[in-house]
Amino acid sequence: MSYKIGLIRVLTTKKTEILLSHQKIIQNNFPEFEIETKCIQDQFEGIHDEKTLNIAFPKIVKLAKEWEKNIDGLIISCAGDPAVEHLRKILSVPVVGAGVSAACMSLNFGKKVGIIGIEQYPPKSYEEILKDRLFAYELPEGVVTTNDLQTDQGRESITNSAKNLKSIGCDVITFACTGLSTTGAATLLKDIGLPVVDAVMAEGAMMKFMLMEKNKKVVDRNV
Amino acid sequence: MSYKIGLIRVLTTKKTEILLSHQKIIQNNFPEFEIETKCIQDQFEGIHDEKTLNIAFPKIVKLAKEWEKNIDGLIISCAGDPAVEHLRKILSVPVVGAGVSAACMSLNFGKKVGIIGIEQYPPKSYEEILKDRLFAYELPEGVVTTNDLQTDQGRESITNSAKNLKSIGCDVITFACTGLSTTGAATLLKDIGLPVVDAVMAEGAMMKFMLMEKNKKVVDRNV
Repeated sequence: MSYKIGLIRVLTTKKTEILLSHQKIIQNNFPEFEIETKCIQDQFEGIHDEKTLNIAFPKIVKLAKEWEKNIDGLIISCAGDPAVEHLRKILSVPVVGAGVSAACMSLNFGKKVGIIGIEQYPPKSYEEILKDRLFAYELPEGVVTTNDLQTDQGRESITNSAKNLKSIGCDVITFACTGLSTTGAATLLKDIGLPVVDAVMAEGAMMKFMLMEKNKKVVDRNV
Repeated sequence: MSYKIGLIRVLTTKKTEILLSHQKIIQNNFPEFEIETKCIQDQFEGIHDEKTLNIAFPKIVKLAKEWEKNIDGLIISCAGDPAVEHLRKILSVPVVGAGVSAACMSLNFGKKVGIIGIEQYPPKSYEEILKDRLFAYELPEGVVTTNDLQTDQGRESITNSAKNLKSIGCDVITFACTGLSTTGAATLLKDIGLPVVDAVMAEGAMMKFMLMEKNKKVVDRNV
């Protein structure tokens, strides 16, 4: 059984390889998903504070509503989960956000969750879900927008942040920006010696589970 | 890519359809898993209190250690997560428990989680992970062991428990016994009007995510 999944990027980009990077991560792991990616317009620095979130919000809602009838599920591929709660109330298809998904998955791996993101504080879903398991937060040096994660310097800063989190006793590293997925940070950190929760991988797995839940594809009684 | 998954049932049974019921739910959703099920011996009432947990613990550890070299991942298909923390320290393959998995997934669906289980209190992973989102708990009337969930009366009690949870304002129903999966309770509750987190579906999805995390199957940078 295959599912048509819509994936919304909150970063406007003309570069196909950047645009499709999240779709590719998910499709590599879930070949049963037929994913299409669209990005919102005029948001070349993505979402990195309250102002850019507020500007993005109505664009995401408009795109989602237009898309609803042609998809089986919608992924908002941003760790700030912009419009996710609102869209869950108004759409008939499962809606997944990267932040909620990553936070949920983290709890399986550890009790001292170290987070890497691009804002001054972790997105609110991480605080709401992890509570006292949110052990530490790192904003990599020199990083302001998601684009800063894509450079050699950005990647070095990510590695340093991960090492800092490990040194203070975190038992899992969780990403709070999907730009970390675009830059391949999970691979970059593969030898860090801690589990790494990539937010794009997490949103893919959560979409799968939401579709399983919706379709209640369980066995019949005692069969 | 396919994975060999070992699934341990903590209920001793000679009935093949009961033995394989969890395996079948997961395989229906994850055809890439080649699952084998084994059950521990002399535990015909499963685990339903501290005493039966303590008896089961060493049996699970022994079975897991013997199995380790032939599998890519191990599922302990019990919401009490017996031996899961211990096995994660001593085995080299990902180890998943039904309880932790179901609790993690629940946080994606709601803020007032209603739980149905077979003990006097929810298993500890639900309390530790859900914290103040653990809104209410129901032990279906007349149920003492997992076997009591498999009868017509047991199924009626499950439905009543779910209705109770809905009536007091729960926004998601989560199972805290995998016997609820064996009896097909997710299907039974498909019209309840709330999302239902089945612990066997959750452990399958979490195993998938743990394998994704382990293999870091992400795209290379900007490709």
